Amino acid sequence: MSPGIQLTEQGNLRHLLTIEGLSSETLLNILDTAESFITLGRREIKKVPLLRGRTVVNLFFEASTRTRTTFEIAAKRLSADVINLNPTHSSTSKGETLLDTVRTLEAMHTDLFCVRHPESGAPHLIARNVPDHVHIINAGDGRHAHPTQALLDMFTIRAHKGEFRNLRVAVVGDVLHSRVARSQIHALSTLGVAEIRVVGPRTLLPREIERLGVRVFTEMDEGLRDVDVIMMLRVQRERMDGAQIPSEQEYFNLYGLTEERLALADSGAIVMHPGPINRGLEIDSAVADGERSVILAQVTYGIAIRMAVMAIILGGSEPRRSRLPDA
Amino acid sequence: MSPGIQLTEQGNLRHLLTIEGLSSETLLNILDTAESFITLGRREIKKVPLLRGRTVVNLFFEASTRTRTTFEIAAKRLSADVINLNPTHSSTSKGETLLDTVRTLEAMHTDLFCVRHPESGAPHLIARNVPDHVHIINAGDGRHAHPTQALLDMFTIRAHKGEFRNLRVAVVGDVLHSRVARSQIHALSTLGVAEIRVVGPRTLLPREIERLGVRVFTEMDEGLRDVDVIMMLRVQRERMDGAQIPSEQEYFNLYGLTEERLALADSGAIVMHPGPINRGLEIDSAVADGERSVILAQVTYGIAIRMAVMAIILGGSEPRRSRLPDA
Amino acid sequence: MSPGIQLTEQGNLRHLLTIEGLSSETLLNILDTAESFITLGRREIKKVPLLRGRTVVNLFFEASTRTRTTFEIAAKRLSADVINLNPTHSSTSKGETLLDTVRTLEAMHTDLFCVRHPESGAPHLIARNVPDHVHIINAGDGRHAHPTQALLDMFTIRAHKGEFRNLRVAVVGDVLHSRVARSQIHALSTLGVAEIRVVGPRTLLPREIERLGVRVFTEMDEGLRDVDVIMMLRVQRERMDGAQIPSEQEYFNLYGLTEERLALADSGAIVMHPGPINRGLEIDSAVADGERSVILAQVTYGIAIRMAVMAIILGGSEPRRSRLPDA
Repeated sequence: MSPGIQLTEQGNLRHLLTIEGLSSETLLNILDTAESFITLGRREIKKVPLLRGRTVVNLFFEASTRTRTTFEIAAKRLSADVINLNPTHSSTSKGETLLDTVRTLEAMHTDLFCVRHPESGAPHLIARNVPDHVHIINAGDGRHAHPTQALLDMFTIRAHKGEFRNLRVAVVGDVLHSRVARSQIHALSTLGVAEIRVVGPRTLLPREIERLGVRVFTEMDEGLRDVDVIMMLRVQRERMDGAQIPSEQEYFNLYGLTEERLALADSGAIVMHPGPINRGLEIDSAVADGERSVILAQVTYGIAIRMAVMAIILGGSEPRRSRLPDA
Repeated sequence: MSPGIQLTEQGNLRHLLTIEGLSSETLLNILDTAESFITLGRREIKKVPLLRGRTVVNLFFEASTRTRTTFEIAAKRLSADVINLNPTHSSTSKGETLLDTVRTLEAMHTDLFCVRHPESGAPHLIARNVPDHVHIINAGDGRHAHPTQALLDMFTIRAHKGEFRNLRVAVVGDVLHSRVARSQIHALSTLGVAEIRVVGPRTLLPREIERLGVRVFTEMDEGLRDVDVIMMLRVQRERMDGAQIPSEQEYFNLYGLTEERLALADSGAIVMHPGPINRGLEIDSAVADGERSVILAQVTYGIAIRMAVMAIILGGSEPRRSRLPDA
Repeated sequence: MSPGIQLTEQGNLRHLLTIEGLSSETLLNILDTAESFITLGRREIKKVPLLRGRTVVNLFFEASTRTRTTFEIAAKRLSADVINLNPTHSSTSKGETLLDTVRTLEAMHTDLFCVRHPESGAPHLIARNVPDHVHIINAGDGRHAHPTQALLDMFTIRAHKGEFRNLRVAVVGDVLHSRVARSQIHALSTLGVAEIRVVGPRTLLPREIERLGVRVFTEMDEGLRDVDVIMMLRVQRERMDGAQIPSEQEYFNLYGLTEERLALADSGAIVMHPGPINRGLEIDSAVADGERSVILAQVTYGIAIRMAVMAIILGGSEPRRSRLPDA
């Protein structure tokens, strides 16, 4: 999956499919644009008419109320028209292919698709097959990527810790099955943090993860020592029955983030989580609701980040043109 | 459930959770505001920009197309952005708690939640846990309350019968399981109607209902005699199999509102029903569609009442502020 | 079902229920209005404030993401407020009748219902029971009609082939179960095409179809010879198991549109399909994606047509008035 498809010939962002291959300039431009959507002082998110007359389609082949809602709110705050589609129920059950579904919607002169799909690579497949004036944002594909989540995480880190350069960051939990973790590691690496740690049981870490330039810890206490940022991952309860995780209680004993463990990190460390959180499984309620937690701030920033990505992608483009013949 | 939570220190309406504890001034202010949204003469409901830029979330943990639609239309006529969520399908199935769901949505800078929940007290729980700038309207919780329904009923009574003071009102049917009946009785009592009657089989009346200041009738004919307003309740067909109601036919024979029975009421009496109606179960079609029926007028007024409650609650508040740290 | 109900006394379009009974002037007026919503030169669909403050309800008793989305986008491009309802899940499961559902929504001062229903005639039933200021568009009822599909098909034919008068048009496939085919044949006939052919296996053609003034072909090659327009119908895979169609492979062999067969038609012939297409069943991928295919153009024109019908129907009407008593 070449990241080249994400950029126009002039180097502008055309799609957002993965963090991989994007420059630090591109990432920082997104963070700065998101900043502009947050009114300083009041921390209010402004409604702006940037995308008036544009149509944004939330194309979710996998249910996710939370993520879909953030894209819907972001698009409406930009004054776009928003269409929510969950194609599992209708057209695809009639046997329509993924690309036929997209081509049909595109023929309705929709401008932007926010795509979530259970299979890795589905948003790339779509992006390779749309005309120039149609744009794709990956809202999570299989185990592959979730780039807007990683961007809002970077925004959160910068808002709370300032410069990336001197930070030690731990990504904790089920890295193996997490599209979020992959995108986070790419973003942290591109933005040049001092150290990226990956913490979890060996069964939940991808083989050869070290190749991404991270340090691996299978002991939670060691992994957290002196870090500035703790990025917890969500554990899928569905995996509990399998061989990979013995039991919820044992997982919490070994890798749950408690106040005692948090004390091992730097005294100014922040705690992040993409949500929804499993209280008492990967994180203790006292930590999730504690003063070091920035979990709800992440949600707020997530709206601004999605507004920024939409505005950058569509702002640089001409309004929709079609492939219709000149009759 | 102290009603104090509904009001600000200045006595303004902050949430609408229950009619209980609200003053007649508060109720009449809502009715008057609703009146202003209905263009006199043409009885047209106006679209106004009062809530432009605000985000209203319909958070329905229990399916109800009808009620959800009224809140959606009301919010859109006030020019708000509206998000419809039915959390049973997604986040809560992932084990997220009610409060985590709300805190997450609130972090997206949503201003108002219209909450329907199968458990009594859920909207109160939420209201006790949101920051000052977030507002809750109870759209029906368990058997407890449905305050906007009661308000639109009061609006309907005033529009058709004028002053509350001299009215005799009968609430008829399954009072035991009805959140509507509870809210109606509180509203009628606060607004000072002359007499509130409760009519139904003993098995469908709450014990000690008399304590609410109502007269109890188990004979339909007696209960309707000379009343000015008949407020029918919906009978849940699901209860028919149980011991509480013997059969649909027998229920209709004993408590169905027919033209013969309607003739026992005052000659100017009006017939109300919260809908959807069960024709031939609690009400005869001739009555439902007859000239004394104001059932469809109730629906119309329901939009204006919900607009009024939203406008009052949000109009008095500052636009959204967040709990984010001043970075 | 008298078509008279569709027109006002002045001959203006009040509802769109069926093509049957509409004059060629009415049809051409809709096509011309749709043309005005497509910016010539750029083929861009404009957003216009024609229906600001109006409420459009998509009332779909049968799931159809594709069709519902076209109505939703069309209404939003006209600046209307849009409510999507799928009543199978809620009110009708509570036993509410079709007319009670509509009357309730109408009492919310909704202006236009786009109705899809599995039973033929349901939109007519509704149209006969709404007050003057409420309008109905049939979005597909049973096997009966799908008039906006036929109109966008006519728009497509005119855009690509010019005058209707000299055209030979073939409607191919499962005519028996198709509401689209019925509407197409009425439209083609009213607009005066030279020849309408119906092509398919005898088991999938309605008895006495010749009465509609069409020529019947059970041999695909014969039916396609020298035609200017090929209108493929969708085959329901559900029918494959029955006696009507032996197998997918055999159907494709006998009636699938391949490049070889397309070569039998006029050299300038266009290929149409209402979608979603079944690749390899009724149409070969090479044809569906080929240069003679105008399938995606149909989708684009479908938005403009639905905008035109909504604008014509509502443009001629006064804003909503209610049936409320003058209190």
